Amino acid sequence: MTNIAKRHEPIRLAMIGGGPGAFIGPVHRIAAQLDGEFKLVAGTFSSDPQRSLQAGLSYGIECDRAYGDVESLIAGERSRPDGAELIAIVTPNHLHFSAARAALDADFSVMSDKPATATLAQALELRDIVARASGVYGLTYTYTGYPLVREARARIAAGEIGVLRKVVVEYFQGWLAGAPEQAGNKQAAWRVDPARAGMGGCIGDIGVHAFNLAEFITGHQIIEINPQLDVMVKGRSIDDDCTILTRYDNGATGYIAASQVATGERNGLTIRIYGESGAIAWRQERADRLVLTAEDGTQTILWGGTDALGPSAGEASRLPSGHPEGYFEAFANLYRDMARKLRGGDAPLLPTIQEGVRSMAFVATSVERNGGGWTSLQI
Amino acid sequence: MTNIAKRHEPIRLAMIGGGPGAFIGPVHRIAAQLDGEFKLVAGTFSSDPQRSLQAGLSYGIECDRAYGDVESLIAGERSRPDGAELIAIVTPNHLHFSAARAALDADFSVMSDKPATATLAQALELRDIVARASGVYGLTYTYTGYPLVREARARIAAGEIGVLRKVVVEYFQGWLAGAPEQAGNKQAAWRVDPARAGMGGCIGDIGVHAFNLAEFITGHQIIEINPQLDVMVKGRSIDDDCTILTRYDNGATGYIAASQVATGERNGLTIRIYGESGAIAWRQERADRLVLTAEDGTQTILWGGTDALGPSAGEASRLPSGHPEGYFEAFANLYRDMARKLRGGDAPLLPTIQEGVRSMAFVATSVERNGGGWTSLQI
Amino acid sequence: MTNIAKRHEPIRLAMIGGGPGAFIGPVHRIAAQLDGEFKLVAGTFSSDPQRSLQAGLSYGIECDRAYGDVESLIAGERSRPDGAELIAIVTPNHLHFSAARAALDADFSVMSDKPATATLAQALELRDIVARASGVYGLTYTYTGYPLVREARARIAAGEIGVLRKVVVEYFQGWLAGAPEQAGNKQAAWRVDPARAGMGGCIGDIGVHAFNLAEFITGHQIIEINPQLDVMVKGRSIDDDCTILTRYDNGATGYIAASQVATGERNGLTIRIYGESGAIAWRQERADRLVLTAEDGTQTILWGGTDALGPSAGEASRLPSGHPEGYFEAFANLYRDMARKLRGGDAPLLPTIQEGVRSMAFVATSVERNGGGWTSLQI
Amino acid sequence: MTNIAKRHEPIRLAMIGGGPGAFIGPVHRIAAQLDGEFKLVAGTFSSDPQRSLQAGLSYGIECDRAYGDVESLIAGERSRPDGAELIAIVTPNHLHFSAARAALDADFSVMSDKPATATLAQALELRDIVARASGVYGLTYTYTGYPLVREARARIAAGEIGVLRKVVVEYFQGWLAGAPEQAGNKQAAWRVDPARAGMGGCIGDIGVHAFNLAEFITGHQIIEINPQLDVMVKGRSIDDDCTILTRYDNGATGYIAASQVATGERNGLTIRIYGESGAIAWRQERADRLVLTAEDGTQTILWGGTDALGPSAGEASRLPSGHPEGYFEAFANLYRDMARKLRGGDAPLLPTIQEGVRSMAFVATSVERNGGGWTSLQI
Repeated sequence: MTNIAKRHEPIRLAMIGGGPGAFIGPVHRIAAQLDGEFKLVAGTFSSDPQRSLQAGLSYGIECDRAYGDVESLIAGERSRPDGAELIAIVTPNHLHFSAARAALDADFSVMSDKPATATLAQALELRDIVARASGVYGLTYTYTGYPLVREARARIAAGEIGVLRKVVVEYFQGWLAGAPEQAGNKQAAWRVDPARAGMGGCIGDIGVHAFNLAEFITGHQIIEINPQLDVMVKGRSIDDDCTILTRYDNGATGYIAASQVATGERNGLTIRIYGESGAIAWRQERADRLVLTAEDGTQTILWGGTDALGPSAGEASRLPSGHPEGYFEAFANLYRDMARKLRGGDAPLLPTIQEGVRSMAFVATSVERNGGGWTSLQI
Repeated sequence: MTNIAKRHEPIRLAMIGGGPGAFIGPVHRIAAQLDGEFKLVAGTFSSDPQRSLQAGLSYGIECDRAYGDVESLIAGERSRPDGAELIAIVTPNHLHFSAARAALDADFSVMSDKPATATLAQALELRDIVARASGVYGLTYTYTGYPLVREARARIAAGEIGVLRKVVVEYFQGWLAGAPEQAGNKQAAWRVDPARAGMGGCIGDIGVHAFNLAEFITGHQIIEINPQLDVMVKGRSIDDDCTILTRYDNGATGYIAASQVATGERNGLTIRIYGESGAIAWRQERADRLVLTAEDGTQTILWGGTDALGPSAGEASRLPSGHPEGYFEAFANLYRDMARKLRGGDAPLLPTIQEGVRSMAFVATSVERNGGGWTSLQI
Repeated sequence: MTNIAKRHEPIRLAMIGGGPGAFIGPVHRIAAQLDGEFKLVAGTFSSDPQRSLQAGLSYGIECDRAYGDVESLIAGERSRPDGAELIAIVTPNHLHFSAARAALDADFSVMSDKPATATLAQALELRDIVARASGVYGLTYTYTGYPLVREARARIAAGEIGVLRKVVVEYFQGWLAGAPEQAGNKQAAWRVDPARAGMGGCIGDIGVHAFNLAEFITGHQIIEINPQLDVMVKGRSIDDDCTILTRYDNGATGYIAASQVATGERNGLTIRIYGESGAIAWRQERADRLVLTAEDGTQTILWGGTDALGPSAGEASRLPSGHPEGYFEAFANLYRDMARKLRGGDAPLLPTIQEGVRSMAFVATSVERNGGGWTSLQI
Repeated sequence: MTNIAKRHEPIRLAMIGGGPGAFIGPVHRIAAQLDGEFKLVAGTFSSDPQRSLQAGLSYGIECDRAYGDVESLIAGERSRPDGAELIAIVTPNHLHFSAARAALDADFSVMSDKPATATLAQALELRDIVARASGVYGLTYTYTGYPLVREARARIAAGEIGVLRKVVVEYFQGWLAGAPEQAGNKQAAWRVDPARAGMGGCIGDIGVHAFNLAEFITGHQIIEINPQLDVMVKGRSIDDDCTILTRYDNGATGYIAASQVATGERNGLTIRIYGESGAIAWRQERADRLVLTAEDGTQTILWGGTDALGPSAGEASRLPSGHPEGYFEAFANLYRDMARKLRGGDAPLLPTIQEGVRSMAFVATSVERNGGGWTSLQI
């Protein structure tokens, strides 16, 4: 490979997963290329070689770079002078680990969709692999890419609301309130299947986002949890609803509530953090604003793209305030961070395998200790 | 007493508590008289006879009907042909029981502020007293008086969102985030003092509202709870923050979260109920609207005072839609219910001692089983 | 009459209008008595003596004080030692002038519903009558009674948003979008009848509120208008929709838009004021908040009942923040102002006949110069 | 050129304008390439050849395709077998016409930023040029690309709110409330300079968006206007604030209000349309929702990405509901429409030169008849 740092051209990207009917694959593809930092050049988009080829062509990939399996992709791209440099992993959860391991072992950098792995043991092993790898490993906890999330983190770190006391995170969706997995919905099918989703259902799919967001914004670790996971729709073997009471390393308390059977909710991720001298709140569905509340109840609303924001949020916006940016752009910020790292720079906000390990510990402990009261989450 | 049912004149009201600096006393006074159904004629407004007299005069009470203690009030009013007919109890919690007992035993009707009593044992005893009393007993769980709360109840009862699955109730305030009890705030002082507030702090002051609202709107009983109560501000001996996981008699789950240290929150009571085919949400601070959500995420916003509402909500509004009604008017609806009962009619929505008993069981069980996992709440 | 200033007892109130089916009559009745400052003792509630009597009894009036016409009311109450002291005028518009004149000439004080009169000539004449009267004259431009409206006025007067540049006022209702006057709606019937409503339809009914609110909050006079009035529903002879471009005495511009055929709007009164260094906005349907916007777009939301508000708003609230107050309470603030004036105090925010004259000039000029371009409004 | 219709590869795009410091250039660049339909291959990004080259390199353009002027771009790209097929024009307004003419005359297709031209005469001439050109001409009235705007148009066309009566459009910004043009802001400088912006200031920059949106959503033409344009900040020679009363071809009335001195407003474009049986409202800053209001005031909120939307909105979304899409994605929808047209398909929603002519007539008439009352806008 040529030296990425000294190049003007886009970094070459391959993708594992993301074929027809996928949700997160197209998001990675659009987000990675949005700023011109990456160019998709190869991939194995489906385990069916014909479908992989077809998908590749539709994405503008040359036909000999649409591979039928991961091994061929890695071997093929490794052998080319213009081979891929970063591999995005966008498969169902159970394939994340093996793909990441193979890619890292072959000196590729990796951008993995969350969760990092299907089990905690895998996550711990992957941490070791990353530690000795030549490539960079990034994990797309999407919501850390939103400008106002970064602003919230910066303000809390600066002490703007004082010592934190209470952290409430909710992630409510309703799309599994019926039983779409029985009606041919592929996205639903693998998420309710422990063989492909991992041991956690709702907690593994979206609970981890809430967990990661809480630790990202607060800058504190959750050290004890009291988990309650439930199956609300008959016939499922893994949770579709959960509430986890939490204690943070500084004494703050709170809860993480996630559900995929909250009928009618779309992508209702919200976080509210109460400190001794103020509060801060963010709602993903209105991602371009941050609400600060003073002790007397007066609220200050900060809007994305304004001069009121600090540098971490400022860098993460592309448009003047009032011109909404959204999910693709948040995702693109993670890829921008990855590009910066690959070019030798610093990108401290990009989630790493460390966040992957903590998230998997959260899932594993919640599942194992479901309904059993308080337990430690130190890892 | 003359027969209330056949009279045009306002029903005569006495008040226990509600002197200078009180919060809820003036609310009762204004609410009771708002529709002209009651007229305040007597009271013991303070344990200090001079202050009681002064308060009485300022409320337009004749000087011989501003009593220095409950016994005198009861004796005095009982002996007059134009004596009070309903006694409103608006003292700190620890005095509710004895005042209610005395009034009921003397054949007065009673409108008590919540909680019904300071302990569960008292509540159970009061239930017996009410059962054999000649007067009517009502309990001002304020939020049941809001038109849109009644609409929510009616729609759920009619099956509009299907079988209920998840019930999330939050009641967040921030006014105890500092330590106002140490700065001369009387309202704060008695609430953090177990001798006057009862065994529950935040849970007894506002958690019970959330609990009552949940059972009122859903029409279901909470049969199991998993309570976590915390003291967040040093020096307090009773909880100022709590989260209680809940299970309902139909299998629905959820949680009740209440806090008085959620900095900057004003009176943040919200309830969201998810059923198999839709959801319904209400927020006290925007009391005149109800949000229904369909499975596909489409929302319907119902506004107070419109023809879209059913009879229970319609009766509870006084103004055309868009002319905000609020807390006083909700409270006045409870007094209107009481008037209807006193005049021999039916008012099934007015909280009774039964709601008082259940709320006290919720408080007592939460305090006793704090942190201990799931426990039954059947009573 | 006894000296009001030195009395503890409520001020005695009589009412002209406000019989069965009325909208604004009951509002006056409840608002006046809400704080215990007034007591309704007499009235002529209907031009039909039987109906007037019936209404009076239902309001707790003694039967000899429910009069059949204004003359009897004035004569009767004047002759009693305990006669009414304030007369509230709550009839359709065309009767305001004669009632106010009769009451003032007989040394009563007057609280008149808006508009002050049916014509500008009457308003000018009434101004002279008020000038020489012994009683006080107040005009219920309701929206000036809201705490946050008073806060907005105080902040603008203090220069908080700099020199004003642009003032946008909208008052959109939809209740006349159909033709309810043809379906037996009494409220609609008189409002679309120029004989009873006066020369202005929508502009006289709600446009004047918008006009008054603009001048009240900004502290500036509108000196030029460019009016456009339309009849949108066939068969009406007076406007049901209007937009009036405005220029203020300090050079600010803007517009007042009012409609009663804006289908689905309930009581959509909003005002947005842009100054050189910030903006301020208020919406009646969310009356308990005020939104300030800084130059960089950051918004500050002030809530009623908090310590963030100044004294004029503080005095106008009765409850802790987060306990919504609404229309009745705003209205009651006007009566509280009136009580203060009657007791010899100062109440500079209570609208007077001067506001009545300006509003009538606004209506008259708009109607006369409809569609004719810019014209002066100096009076 | 090869036949676009039969190709899988992206359509080749050149750009005129869009160098360093530009606002809309990068938007076009990202939006055009977001779906992989276009690939930027050439451009003249600045009138300074060095800067143009530098910009081109940073966008991944080969160095011989970053031209120093429009003529070279057209000659150069025309002579290549792999030359650009579509030319995007993203310069200040005064250059739109000559660039579009040159490109169309040389058989390129054109995507022009709005307004189409600097004068009405140019727009009319361009209409003739387009009529005889072999290429396609599209005009990026951005807001027509939002899914919910298309939904609104479809629902109104289907008669969902009945005959339209009142159309209120506001476009309020505050970024010119100071005088940024005097502080080195290039975006501000050309917009307040009639030599570069054209005869209209605020009306030409954003008023036209409001005008276009009104006609797009309603499906009706504005046939009479009563314009008022003002200069609020001293020293400017063209308007920075305007309000235009409007009449539609079906008898509906309303107004278009636009301002760039509405301090603190960010990109406040809103439209509210009242019909005989309902209303519909959209706000750009909350672009993913549409609010329908029924006659009784009940509101229905439709969210982007849900099954509740029709095909025109459905096609325009890329993500599940609740994952916000914004300005780039709306813009990308216009490019998607252009791609469809270039590939021989139909894209009836993409604004054409006809919309360009009408918008310029709106600007020209407003400027010429400023303050003069009602005038015709038929063209």
